[in-house]
This record gives sequence, C-alpha cells and structure tokens, in this order.
Amino acid sequence: MNQVGRDIPRLEVRAKVTGRADYTHNLRLPGMLYGKVFRATVPHGRIRSIDTQAARELPGVYRVVTGEDIRKLIPEPYYGPAFHDQPILALDKVRYVGEPVAAVLAGDPHVAELAVQLILAEYDELPAVYDEVAAMQPDTLVHDVLRPAGTFADLKHLQGRKGTNVALDYHLRRGDADKAFAAADRVIEHTFKTQQCLHLPFEPHVAIAEPGDDRLTIYTSNQTPSFVRIEIARLFGWPENHVRVKVPYLGGGYGSKVYVKLEALVAALAMLVRRPVKIALTMEEQFYMITKHPTTFRIKSGVDKEGRLVARSCAVYWNGGAYADIGPRVTQKSGFTAAGPYDIDNVSIDSYALYTNRTPAGALRGFGVPQLVWAYESHTDLIARELGVDPVEFRRKNLLRDGRPQASGTVLQDAAIGEVLDALAVRIGWNKPFDRGSGTLRRGRGIAIGFKASISPTTSVAVVNVSADGSVYLYKSTVDMGQGSDTAFAQIVGEVLDVKAEDVRVVAPDTDITPYDMGTLGSRSLFHMGTAVRLAAEDARAKLRALATEAGLPQGTNYPPAEIFKKRYGMQAGNVIGTASYVPNYKPPDPQTGLSDNVTPFWMVGGAAAEVEVDTETGHVRILRLVNAADCGKPINPGVARTQLSGAAIMQLGFTMSEAMHLDGGQITNASLADYKIPGIGDIPPMENELVAAEQHSGPFGAKGLGESGTFGVSPAIANAIHDAVGVRITELPITAEAVLRALRVKAGQPLDDE
Amino acid sequence: MNQVGRDIPRLEVRAKVTGRADYTHNLRLPGMLYGKVFRATVPHGRIRSIDTQAARELPGVYRVVTGEDIRKLIPEPYYGPAFHDQPILALDKVRYVGEPVAAVLAGDPHVAELAVQLILAEYDELPAVYDEVAAMQPDTLVHDVLRPAGTFADLKHLQGRKGTNVALDYHLRRGDADKAFAAADRVIEHTFKTQQCLHLPFEPHVAIAEPGDDRLTIYTSNQTPSFVRIEIARLFGWPENHVRVKVPYLGGGYGSKVYVKLEALVAALAMLVRRPVKIALTMEEQFYMITKHPTTFRIKSGVDKEGRLVARSCAVYWNGGAYADIGPRVTQKSGFTAAGPYDIDNVSIDSYALYTNRTPAGALRGFGVPQLVWAYESHTDLIARELGVDPVEFRRKNLLRDGRPQASGTVLQDAAIGEVLDALAVRIGWNKPFDRGSGTLRRGRGIAIGFKASISPTTSVAVVNVSADGSVYLYKSTVDMGQGSDTAFAQIVGEVLDVKAEDVRVVAPDTDITPYDMGTLGSRSLFHMGTAVRLAAEDARAKLRALATEAGLPQGTNYPPAEIFKKRYGMQAGNVIGTASYVPNYKPPDPQTGLSDNVTPFWMVGGAAAEVEVDTETGHVRILRLVNAADCGKPINPGVARTQLSGAAIMQLGFTMSEAMHLDGGQITNASLADYKIPGIGDIPPMENELVAAEQHSGPFGAKGLGESGTFGVSPAIANAIHDAVGVRITELPITAEAVLRALRVKAGQPLDDE
Repeated sequence: MNQVGRDIPRLEVRAKVTGRADYTHNLRLPGMLYGKVFRATVPHGRIRSIDTQAARELPGVYRVVTGEDIRKLIPEPYYGPAFHDQPILALDKVRYVGEPVAAVLAGDPHVAELAVQLILAEYDELPAVYDEVAAMQPDTLVHDVLRPAGTFADLKHLQGRKGTNVALDYHLRRGDADKAFAAADRVIEHTFKTQQCLHLPFEPHVAIAEPGDDRLTIYTSNQTPSFVRIEIARLFGWPENHVRVKVPYLGGGYGSKVYVKLEALVAALAMLVRRPVKIALTMEEQFYMITKHPTTFRIKSGVDKEGRLVARSCAVYWNGGAYADIGPRVTQKSGFTAAGPYDIDNVSIDSYALYTNRTPAGALRGFGVPQLVWAYESHTDLIARELGVDPVEFRRKNLLRDGRPQASGTVLQDAAIGEVLDALAVRIGWNKPFDRGSGTLRRGRGIAIGFKASISPTTSVAVVNVSADGSVYLYKSTVDMGQGSDTAFAQIVGEVLDVKAEDVRVVAPDTDITPYDMGTLGSRSLFHMGTAVRLAAEDARAKLRALATEAGLPQGTNYPPAEIFKKRYGMQAGNVIGTASYVPNYKPPDPQTGLSDNVTPFWMVGGAAAEVEVDTETGHVRILRLVNAADCGKPINPGVARTQLSGAAIMQLGFTMSEAMHLDGGQITNASLADYKIPGIGDIPPMENELVAAEQHSGPFGAKGLGESGTFGVSPAIANAIHDAVGVRITELPITAEAVLRALRVKAGQPLDDE
Repeated sequence: MNQVGRDIPRLEVRAKVTGRADYTHNLRLPGMLYGKVFRATVPHGRIRSIDTQAARELPGVYRVVTGEDIRKLIPEPYYGPAFHDQPILALDKVRYVGEPVAAVLAGDPHVAELAVQLILAEYDELPAVYDEVAAMQPDTLVHDVLRPAGTFADLKHLQGRKGTNVALDYHLRRGDADKAFAAADRVIEHTFKTQQCLHLPFEPHVAIAEPGDDRLTIYTSNQTPSFVRIEIARLFGWPENHVRVKVPYLGGGYGSKVYVKLEALVAALAMLVRRPVKIALTMEEQFYMITKHPTTFRIKSGVDKEGRLVARSCAVYWNGGAYADIGPRVTQKSGFTAAGPYDIDNVSIDSYALYTNRTPAGALRGFGVPQLVWAYESHTDLIARELGVDPVEFRRKNLLRDGRPQASGTVLQDAAIGEVLDALAVRIGWNKPFDRGSGTLRRGRGIAIGFKASISPTTSVAVVNVSADGSVYLYKSTVDMGQGSDTAFAQIVGEVLDVKAEDVRVVAPDTDITPYDMGTLGSRSLFHMGTAVRLAAEDARAKLRALATEAGLPQGTNYPPAEIFKKRYGMQAGNVIGTASYVPNYKPPDPQTGLSDNVTPFWMVGGAAAEVEVDTETGHVRILRLVNAADCGKPINPGVARTQLSGAAIMQLGFTMSEAMHLDGGQITNASLADYKIPGIGDIPPMENELVAAEQHSGPFGAKGLGESGTFGVSPAIANAIHDAVGVRITELPITAEAVLRALRVKAGQPLDDE
C-alpha cells in the first residue's frame, strides 16, 4: 500500500477549486448581527470620553458597545496566551493606533461601518515609545504592571512587576564568552535590524459567536481551536464543554490566527445581545491586529587563528507592540538559537521582549528565527569576508553537527545542517564560475542557513475510528490552513491501517468533537500531531486484531476490517476506535543559565542560496535564482512538502525586498495593499526546492515539520549576494532599491542629497 | 455524588420549552429545493404511463422525477431493513394507495405541491388483497419474488422464493402440544384481531439531503442514523464514510422513524439535481408511510383439572402491508412470546409475516407485543371465567417465574412478572369491594400483564471524552426523541466519573462523529447503549488513573481530573478518551424448533389494571382509573421512567379505544386527525404509574429499558374490565362505543338493525 511517501494531491483540492470548501466567511446564521470596530486614533492616551450617541441613533444600529459594557459582563476582560494584558475593548487607556475601543452591531454591516464613523472619542494623550531599544528605558511605560497568564509556569515570577517595558528577559550563558572574546584572535561585531511587517492571509480574520443560555459556539478562522475554547471558558468562568469552537478551512494563517484574536470580542458581544455576532476584518484592519516583531540584534563573534568561532554574544530586542501576545515565547523559544547553527563553546545570549506603542507582534512563520538568521548569517558572511575565506568553507568549518551540543546544551540529533549547506552549494554551483555581469548590471551570489527548535511541552490527541466496512475517520484539532496537514495525516493513518489515504475522512476541527491539540503552529503538526495520529491508528489496528480474535478468526492473518466486523457482530455493524495522546519529553531551560539538555523534540533546518543582479544606477535588485533546501526528515508527501518550502521562501522574499509597515507619529501610513507591497507573480524568481535526504528517527515514519524552514535563509542569502555583487552591506530589512542605491552612493563617496 | 437514581429534569428541557432545540424541520440550506410526492391512487396495478409534462411546465418547478429516473442513478433502487423490496419511487407496479410514484422539486414547496396535482398516472389495475388471513392464499401476489436484505443471516434461505405472500414464517415447538391438548381437562380457543393504526408523532417525517461530489450529508428525523448511513452507502455503492447522517432532537418516533423512510428518496433526488433537497410529510401523508400491524391471532389453551395451563397453541398472522419493512422481525422476535408470561410445558407457535396491498407496517412501540398481549390476556381472562376462578389467582398459579424456562427454552432471569401482577392487584384494590354501578352505568375491573424480549444481537459503541478541566463529553448515536436517553446516559457517565450529570455534554447523533449504534428502538438504549456508555466511562476513568500515575501522583487517591492534566501536561491541556463496544451474548433460535437457550439479554415486563364504567344504553366506556406497573430494574431517573410508563399507556389507550385506519377498496377514508381520533387531554383517565422494586443484574447500575412496557396490558385490561362490568367480550380493537353496544345488544338478544 505504502501511503507514506506518495505524492497525492491534497484531499480537499477539488472542494477548494470548485468553491465548495467551507470558510467561516461564508457562514450566515439566523438573526446574526455584524460588528464593526471603532479604533483608537492616538498611539497612547487615557480615554477621557467615548460619545456613541450619534452612532446609536443611526437607523439600523442595534447596539454600540464599549469596554465598560464588557466589564459589566466579564469583570476581568483581559486575555492573551502569555500575559492577560489585552482588554477585549480598550479600558481606561489606549496603547496603539488602531486598538479596538468600541464596537457597533447592526443587521447590515454597511450600517455598522457608517455608525463607526459617528463615534467620537477623546483622549488625554501620553508620550509614546515605538523603538525596541528605546523601550528598554522605562521613561515611557506602556503597561503599569505585568500580568502573566499562568499558562506558562516559567512566567509566574513576573507577576506584578512594575516600572518596565520588558515583558520577558531571557538569558543564556554557556562557557565563558567574556574570557573567550579576550583570548580570541579577532572580535567582530555588527548590528542588524528588521522591520514591522505582517501576515496578510488572503482570508482576513473572521469570527462568529452564537450564544446559548450559558454556552457559546464560536465559528472562527483560527489556528488554535483548543486554546480558544479554554480561554473563552476562562473569561466567562465556564467549564470547557460550554464553549464549542468550530474551524473550517483557513485561507492562510502564518501565525496571525493563533490564540485569541477576534474571538473574545465576538463572544462578549454575542453574550451581551444574546444574538449571533460576526466580525470580519477588512484588509486594512489586519494592520491593527497582529504583526511580525521588528528587531534590533547586536551580534559579536570571536574567532581564533584557525578561523574557528570561539565565542559569540547576542543581544536581541524584540519589539512586541502594545500587547504581549505570544511575543515573550518568541523571545525565549527562538532566542536560545540566536547564536546560529555553529559549534561555539562560549555563548552569551540576552533576549528581550518589549512593549511599545505599536500594533502587537506575535508569531509569524518562523517565530522570530528569520529575524535571527538575518542577523547571524549576514554577520557570518561578513566574518568570512573579513577573514578572507570562502563563506561556505567558513560555515563548514564551524558547523554544528549531530552529536555536538547546541548553545542550550542539548546535543544535536537528526539535524541535517551540513546536508542542507551542501545541497545549496551544489545547486547554486558555488564552486563553479558564473557570469558576474558588467557595466551597471553586476551579479553576485550568497548563501545562508538557519535552524529552529520545535515547541515543547505540548500535547496532541488524536482519535481514529474504523467503520464496519473498513472506511476510516480521523479526528484531530489540527487546522488545515493550506499546508496539507489533513492529507499527510490521512497518509499516516492509511499506512498504519493499510487503506488508501483518499479513503480516510479527516474531520474538521470542532472542540465538541475533535480532541485537544495545542495548536497549529511552529511547524509542530506533522511531528507532534502526526505522532499522535500514528499512535491512534496503531491503537485502532491493535483493537481490530483483538476483535478478529474475539470473532474466532485464526491469528496471524490480516483480515479486511469488513470481514472482522461481520464475523464478530453478525452484520455490518460497529466501530473500532483508537486513541492516543502524545507529549514529547522535554526539560525546561534552567532559569539562571538558560540551559537544558532536552530543549526541543526535533530541529528544523533550512537555507537558501541566491543569485542576484544589482543595477548600480538605480539600486534595483533582480533575483536571478533562488535555491531553497531543507531537512524535513523523510517527507510524508514530497510534493506537498516542496510547496511548503517554496511558499515559505516566497513569503520571506516579500519581507526581504519590499514589505514594511511605515509609521508616522504612531500612525501607520501604508495600511493597504496598494501601499504595502507583497510579492506578485512577476516578483517570483526562478526557484529550486530541495528536500535533502534525511530522517527524523523520533518522527512519524521518519518525518518532521517544514512549514517555516523555507523562511530561514532567504533574507541573508540575498543580502550576502548583493554584497558579493556590488560590495555593499545592507543591515536592515527590507532591501529596497533605495536602500541599495544609498549604500552604493555612500560606498562611492557620493551620498544621496538627503544623507 | 450518586448521579444514578437522581430525579433530574431532562437536560434539554430548557432548550425545548424556549423553542431553541434543534429539529430537522427548522433547517434550511442555501439553494435547497423542496420535494413533494405524487402518490398511487390504486391499491395494486401495473404502471402504464406517468404524464409529468404539465407539472414540469408549471413555472417554478425545477424537476419532476420518476422511478425510472432514479433507476438511471441507482441500478437497483430497492431498500428495506429485512427485505430489499421497496423501490425509492414505484417501478413497474404500485402496491398500495399512497405509494410514492413521482416527486416534484421546486424552490417553493407550495409550487411543488401544486405541480403534484398536475401529474397523471395510468395503471392496469390488479386484484388486491387486504386481509392477513386471506393473504395466506397465493391467489393474489403482492410481490413476485422474495428478496431478503442479507442483513440477517436467518432470512437468507428465503432468497428467490416465489408464489407466496408470506415474507417469513416462524415456528416454535416446545414439548408436545397436540398430545397435551388431547390429555387436557379442558381446551379453550379464541380468535382476536387488531386494527391498522399508526404512530403519528407530532413531528411528521422530514429529511434533507445535501450532496457533495461523491458524498452526501443527510439531516433527518430518524431513530437509526447508523443504519441509514450503511443503507444509503449501499444504494450508491460508496464506503460508509461518504455518507454523513445527522439527527437532532426528534418530535417523537415510536418506531415510525427506524431504518430508511424518506432518506433514500431525498438522497437520490439530491444526487440527481446536485442541490440540497428537503421533503417533509404532511400529517395526512403519515398514513401512507408506516403503520402498526393489523393481526389475527388464534389462541388455544389446554388446562388440567388443577387449573394449570398444560398446552397452548398460537397462530399469529401479521398484516405487513405492501413492503416488509421490519415486519418479519416482528413476526419472529415477538412471535416467540405469543404464549404469554405463563409456565406452559407444551407450546406451539406459528407466526406469519404477510404482504398485502396496504400501507406497510413496521415497528410501533412494543414491536407486536401489544397485539399479542391483547390476545393472550383476553384469552387468559376468558379461561379463568370459564373455570370460575379469580383471574388474578389463575394468573398467579400459572405465572412464569425466574428460574423457569420460557417457551423458547431460555430460562427466565430478572423478570419481575409476579411483582408487577401483585402491584397492579394492590393498587387497583383487587380484593377489595368496589362500586359496581347501577342502572345503565355499570362498573368493572380488569387486569393484564405482558412481557417482551429485548433485541439481540446488536452492537452499541460509546465514547467518553474528559477535557483538561474535567468537563465531559459523551458521543453516542442513540437518538433522544423525548424518552430522556441523553439525561440517563449523562447520569451514568456522571456516576462513573464522579461529576454532575448536568455537566456532561451529550453530543447529538452525527455518523461522522458519534460511533455506531444499531438504533434507538425496542427499548434497547438504556440497557445496550447504557452498558456501552458505562464501559466507556470506566475506560476513561482507568485512563485518568493511568495519567495520574504517569504524572507521578501517588496512587490510591482520587485526584480531580483538572489536577491530573495540569500535572501531566504542565498546563490546562489534553483529553482522556474512553471507548467501549457492547454486544450481549445471544444464541439465535434453532431454525427447526424455534428454540434458543439465550434468546434475549433481558426481559421487559409491564401490565395494567383498569376500572371502567360502561353505559349500557350507548356502549360508551369511561375509564375511571388506569394503573400501570412495570419492571425497569433499578431506574436511572425514576421521574423520567414514570413518564415513559404513562406515555406508553396513553398511546396504547388511543389504539384501544378509538384509533383505526379505515379502508374502502384499498383507499384510506380517514387520513386526517379530524377523522382519525387520538386521545386528547380530556380522554386521559386518572392514572397511577408504579415501577416495581427490581434489579436487572446484567444492566447498567441494575437498570433496563422501559419505553414499551407501558403498552402491554392496557387493551386487554380494559376489555377484561368491560367484561367484568357488563358481561360482554370485545375481541377486536378498537373498543368503540358502537362495538360495545352491538355486543350488549347481541347478548340481550336484541341485535342492532344491521346485524
């Protein structure tokens, strides 16, 4: 049968291309009201008054709701996965431009939108802070006091901390970096920055809440239905089974739809008015929901005479915006890999999650790692150049290999870092001569690799149900948002039970039905849930065999399930239900040293090689080739895996070349797709995507996750290629033509007029 | 905690009384078409032509579909639980007035209804047969050939049988009845008849099919979602998991909604037009869907000098109408109890399922047993009178008691027959003097008891899911149609897991989600599914304990689930999922003798005592008191159990006193609630309902089913009371005033003019 390793199309592809696939946007419930959000116009201020009278009096408006109305229903209306810092609607203060302050409900969404324009709020403005490094100083405080959620035991010590914008500070100390720097042959230091940008799924956030007496059903475009259930139940003080969260297909997520986003608001509104409430964001409103962390990264390396990295220190400042969301976990869970995939005995890492007066930042495909790789692979390239050695050779010499401890102290296993580097070098023809261009069009090549830990501890539960004719259902709360998880899981079930993957029916997440899963995030689904799915299918297989024995069938033969059921029950009747929970082993980092000898269940490895052409007259960069390589173990579905790799690389290409939110006095000045440039089809370079031969021995059938690996190397590979082409170094994303031109002019001693 | 035995209100009561409970009638899907059925106007005939042109041309009509159209989609479009004899729409022949011949689809149901009036069909009429005894002769054949479904192994030998209207004949021989009759002191014989009547749930049949590419979702008011899934999948040649059957609450079922009713028709129509299709019957159309078997029962008993029953022979003729439905199982599964709850060594039973040209007959609350009890308890009373002994004393002397073999050979266990008889006698004050009336108003009392086997072999599967905060879900495909099964199961789960029943969320049947169950019928749910539920909850409890051990919690203490999850997973996360299948042991009757030493997993016992007043001038019978008693083991919810008992008795009261379908040349002449009289609130007599102290040791917490037991004794208790009051014997149901008056006049030697 061999379902695993088959290149089958995604199971839902026909429903999607014929427009029959379910999305939350399509859903209309009887009596449903549409909500529209009135948002803050100042970046930081105390609310003096909110005048909703004109809005309330507009014909067709059902209700106008403010934060104070919600506080009457929910005494502590604050939510968040790491900190309970975010009010459902602003209370007392606003902390960023675009923060929800009031909501209008109407039967007609256009009426609601019109009414929003009639609301007037007055604020006593406060000083604001936007920069992550500036926010280290407690001159301007975004929050008076820290309120960790209690979800994560290691944040508890922050409870009640005052006078700081640092939501979380993570520190790792391995060996003795100071001593090693002192003894090093050379010490090289740079600072790199990344911009604020955002996920922009084609399906903007949308959620519907349908109220019962003391229960709610929430239909939402969300990556973490189990979390939403628990968080909404917590807000209302209900048991989990009073909240039902249903998630159909998503039109993309990329981390923007993890944890609670619109769900608390629609839930509170629905319980206030006792009618179903739907809120769907516009494209513009996505700029006020959740973003990618801007970062400043100071990185310093010590190199010995043989060209070996002996010390590295990293200071990373994560600009988390006005509410923490999952930012503190980014700071810590990605922070400990800030020194890169190199074998360095002395490492010091300081990583800071900062509150500022911007749109909140959270998880975005890579969970901070692309920002880190941008810095450490630009830095690595610069060291090699300074040492006068080939950048690939420099990397090979210093590469972290299986069996050696990573900075955290965890010994590397099944991380094909060397293989990824080799694959990139071979595909881009690193050691072969190439056309370096001429005149004003100069060509260069760059390479970069990165790695990422997976998330732990996390729990995944799966149920596999075999019907009396042998057809199979799989229940799991993983959200298929385009990554093909339903298909991969069906292949795993098919492999175990010896049925075709296409015949496995994968039930959409619905917390009344599909069991707990921590969330569809961090490329965890294939490994974590995939293992639970495999174990559940194996449990079903064992129960089928037991049923065959009960039915008096001789042992040792594999009977078709239909035959077993018929023999046991006298007719086509019954089910066999296999279940499994999976929680990988894990040891949390020591609070003092940041070290752990079991910090992740597996490592993701990815990299890119780029060949670019730079127009020295305009600064325009054309990507001639982009090679992506990654280690996903043994792929369950190689075709789908390759599209994950290329999709991630294209997304990161946008963040590298053009995407940036522009701020002016706290106001976003380009909150539209007309002014915020994502890659179009014409911007996609010729690409090659390679899954290196590898195996994740602890993974389901040797596989592991891949959703983020394609993002790691793109930005530094391109910056390194530009440096190779024209000798200038870009240290801040995005790499616009203007930035390149400015650098070229500076290099040529002819800075642009405004420099 | 003690959830079992608590008198809690039904869990859904609030949703029902506030009108928020889901029913299939409420559902409208986008693009949905409404179907209306064109029906046969002759009882038996070959279809010569169906002219649909005028209907098709009516503006607003989407499509008109005939049996031939369906045959293009489904080559063998015949369905049925026991025989595949029923076409989705008539093919070649019609076999009863009201049989579906064509269907009109329109966006507006009124347009569809209008179009139905424009269809013209021509038939070559054939002779018809309506009477079950007449149908024993093969003069007029309803079907050319028998086609058993293959579901039941014991019907296979009937495949291809021709030249008969007998769908199934069941024979039981125990001891030597002929010899015993010859040796008996007295031999007494009577014939009793019952009428055709019907279920009439307040929610008439309704079903919706929503098509996918090669799959269907069916929303239906049906008692057997798992069966519907399998049967629809069979018709289309699909695996089970291509058909999803969703069943919300039912507005009553009583056996009318078991197996496939409207589902095959809406499924075929939806797949033909590729749009959702809904069909909802009118009250009138229920008369053409499914009914209760009319019966003729010849019963003969031999009594010895001591007043002991030494022999009994029974010949039962079941009028199954035009299609077998589950009639053959009624014939056999109830047939073997035809000799009643008496200890008789020599028994002969012949039971025949007959095809006639009437609306099909199937399961109706009691599955044939009320018809049997009507006969054997009227007969028993007559014997006692003939012997000149007290009818209760005569019963006591001959009663079948635990430890003695029933006619089938199965030894009676946990059947509180004596206790039920005693309870009735005590409550009605059998041995106390009472007012016998005077003048034209005469009073009398009667008593009757019956028993019923439960269904076997059947399979039930349940899943119990404990969330991380200890709140619980139960998944099962039992349909709560008013009997309170959700509540009882929640109490069982609560008892095992030590949580409040009100905190257990019971998920509505949905074959994509809730596991297999044979069906909600035959009072089987509490025992069969209740046992599966109990076992699944115990499995969850065991897994919780294992999780506590994994989490390092010391053994021997009962930790709250929330604590166990938090300790094991580091946060509020995870599920524990318990599963169980339950199939009671069973031995099918020997095909030759009809005997089995394990014929049923449990026995239902019920009876009634009535006090009546007869107006000798009009024949009008007033029920002064009705006492119902039953053995339901130890009730899970005594309050709900008592309403089951009284509800069943009231239903049987209608069948006893007034309900009857009238036939004229095959046409039903009273197909409306104006002409077919069901009991109104003013017809309900003062009632007492007693659950006798008993225990079903093999049942969940000592309980067993009760849904039908209240029907058993009502009809003969009333007939016996009438005999006691005025000395006339009614042998045919219903007991109308006219029938009583006629009998009084005959007895007085003054028959009515038309006699």
